[in-house]
Amino acid sequence: MKNAANGQFYAPEGKPAPVVKPGEFVFSAIALDHGHIYGQCNGLMEAGAVLKSVYDPDEKKLDAFCVAYPQAKRAGSEEEILSDPEVRLVAGAAVTSERCALGLRVMDAGKDYFTDKAPLTTLEQLAAAKEAVKRTGKKYMVYYSERLHVETAVFAGQLIERGAIGRVVQVLGLGPHRLSAKSRPAWFFEKEKYGGILCDIGSHQIEQILFYTGAKDAVVTHSQIGNFNHPETPELDDFGDASLLTDTGAAGYFRVDWFTPDGLQMWGDGRSIILGTEGFIEQRKYMNLGTSDGPGHLFLANGKEETHYNVHGKVGYPFFGQLVLDCLNRTENAMTQDHAFKAAELCVRAQMQARVMTPQP
Amino acid sequence: MKNAANGQFYAPEGKPAPVVKPGEFVFSAIALDHGHIYGQCNGLMEAGAVLKSVYDPDEKKLDAFCVAYPQAKRAGSEEEILSDPEVRLVAGAAVTSERCALGLRVMDAGKDYFTDKAPLTTLEQLAAAKEAVKRTGKKYMVYYSERLHVETAVFAGQLIERGAIGRVVQVLGLGPHRLSAKSRPAWFFEKEKYGGILCDIGSHQIEQILFYTGAKDAVVTHSQIGNFNHPETPELDDFGDASLLTDTGAAGYFRVDWFTPDGLQMWGDGRSIILGTEGFIEQRKYMNLGTSDGPGHLFLANGKEETHYNVHGKVGYPFFGQLVLDCLNRTENAMTQDHAFKAAELCVRAQMQARVMTPQP
Repeated sequence: MKNAANGQFYAPEGKPAPVVKPGEFVFSAIALDHGHIYGQCNGLMEAGAVLKSVYDPDEKKLDAFCVAYPQAKRAGSEEEILSDPEVRLVAGAAVTSERCALGLRVMDAGKDYFTDKAPLTTLEQLAAAKEAVKRTGKKYMVYYSERLHVETAVFAGQLIERGAIGRVVQVLGLGPHRLSAKSRPAWFFEKEKYGGILCDIGSHQIEQILFYTGAKDAVVTHSQIGNFNHPETPELDDFGDASLLTDTGAAGYFRVDWFTPDGLQMWGDGRSIILGTEGFIEQRKYMNLGTSDGPGHLFLANGKEETHYNVHGKVGYPFFGQLVLDCLNRTENAMTQDHAFKAAELCVRAQMQARVMTPQP
Repeated sequence: MKNAANGQFYAPEGKPAPVVKPGEFVFSAIALDHGHIYGQCNGLMEAGAVLKSVYDPDEKKLDAFCVAYPQAKRAGSEEEILSDPEVRLVAGAAVTSERCALGLRVMDAGKDYFTDKAPLTTLEQLAAAKEAVKRTGKKYMVYYSERLHVETAVFAGQLIERGAIGRVVQVLGLGPHRLSAKSRPAWFFEKEKYGGILCDIGSHQIEQILFYTGAKDAVVTHSQIGNFNHPETPELDDFGDASLLTDTGAAGYFRVDWFTPDGLQMWGDGRSIILGTEGFIEQRKYMNLGTSDGPGHLFLANGKEETHYNVHGKVGYPFFGQLVLDCLNRTENAMTQDHAFKAAELCVRAQMQARVMTPQP
């Protein structure tokens, strides 16, 4: 359950790399609606954070969670966790449209919030979240897992930082996902709740476009959504794509979809191709198509050569330790609040602006 | 020279697969401005066509051509070829903006025309070409080499035809190219002559989007161009991308650029990813990044499995034989005139509509 990589989600486990002493940073989990909560908890715990307690109204979800993390105390209510002075941060993976409301309660209780992506689904929620961050001084951090919890993605950032491909011209992302419709809850197919495909799994992509281009802002220049092959769930966007133009003048493009076929070894053949003035990087994040070589493939081509890096188990996930320290020291090394919110804003805008495609039968 | 694959162009040689008897189909070459003429001639000759003569005002280009094809007679003028009743078809790779004018002369002389892509650079030229086709009954065929002369591209079409990935949802193409600026002629950097990046190398991509989706028409919903890193040639678009929506309701996206770094084994890591309702296809046309496995890699993922096909030398290039027979029989099996013109129209429109990006230094 902690690492159901072949199924629906990706809840990586890394090497422990604690940044604090035992007990120095305590967190809890509230809202287990999406399996990403396991990735969020794994990351924090590997950074030395202690998982104290958990709450969800659904007993079955609690049962499964407590099998994975027997140390977690089953709280009787959300309030029990919010009023626990030892808990510094609450990790949550609520229904997407409810993530902001939970965050407001968490921040109002004086704790930092670490939510699954997408962190919110409307511009009104964004305004409320921004206001609460300002008022409370707390963090509304986001588990953009397809960059933060993927070793090729971390390594790509390090390569770009050191100038390996020159200036970034374009970030292109492919985020195919397996639907596994029968295993999904009802809210997953209700647009008001999941937010639409560009908001939901598109948020990963937009965060990466901002991050790899080093942008502080961007405009969505084109976006579209469609339901090509799932008439039984008409509110599901099974396809979406979008183009962005960043304030660095670079291009961003991404495609997301729910068409991963059952014969694929992994839930999705996630790719990222980053084109620079002096070379390019391709990430084959979770698998190397047509091979059994496992995850973690990064290819770098530059003026000198092509290099195939297998970084699986070698790079780790520095975000989580940085986040723990950011919470303790009130710094922004893991991710700035502005960045987290800008990605959130743009994924909502991409969804709002999207042309609705009308596939021919 | 015939096969300068690692340099600038791709002039594939295949197995001879003649569809006519020796002498049954005679053609000539006029205008050697782009190296693609070698691919065009190779393809026709492998189909059994006989290369009779060649003309270009540039003696050096003629010298090189006649080294590659000693059987070709050096004509003293274009008119000498156009008035030769034995010549049924003229292959040409003129400066892009002059391709239409040459085609009009060829068709007016009662011969079919086979031009390098892009086949024209303006809507006015397109109107003139359409009118001439109607008036003369001759063909204005186009060497969209990145599909017609690439075995994975041919095989992908066959797979889609037999339903291997269900209905096509999106065709996504990446067409990076090596600039090799010093080896390029001046016209290559003059926009009025080369047509802009979306018209020039974008034409390959648009043709593939139409072909793989089975579309007869499409609209360009977004396009942009930029010069990110070549201030010395300000009219060069070194980057461009575009989104199309086809009349089958499918999406098309492509990126083209001149940023292939010198360390890459090939002039470009051309890819095509075709997403269907029941699976997807990835083409790694000319190389398999980070390996020395050569060209011709096609990956198919469907409900059952992932398959890596290496089709190099196995599929061949049926277009050329079909073209020769189409010319003899006045059929349209290789490519319809409408398809050739529609791709031409859309690449001009993509270029005309393109937002001009302003990269930050």
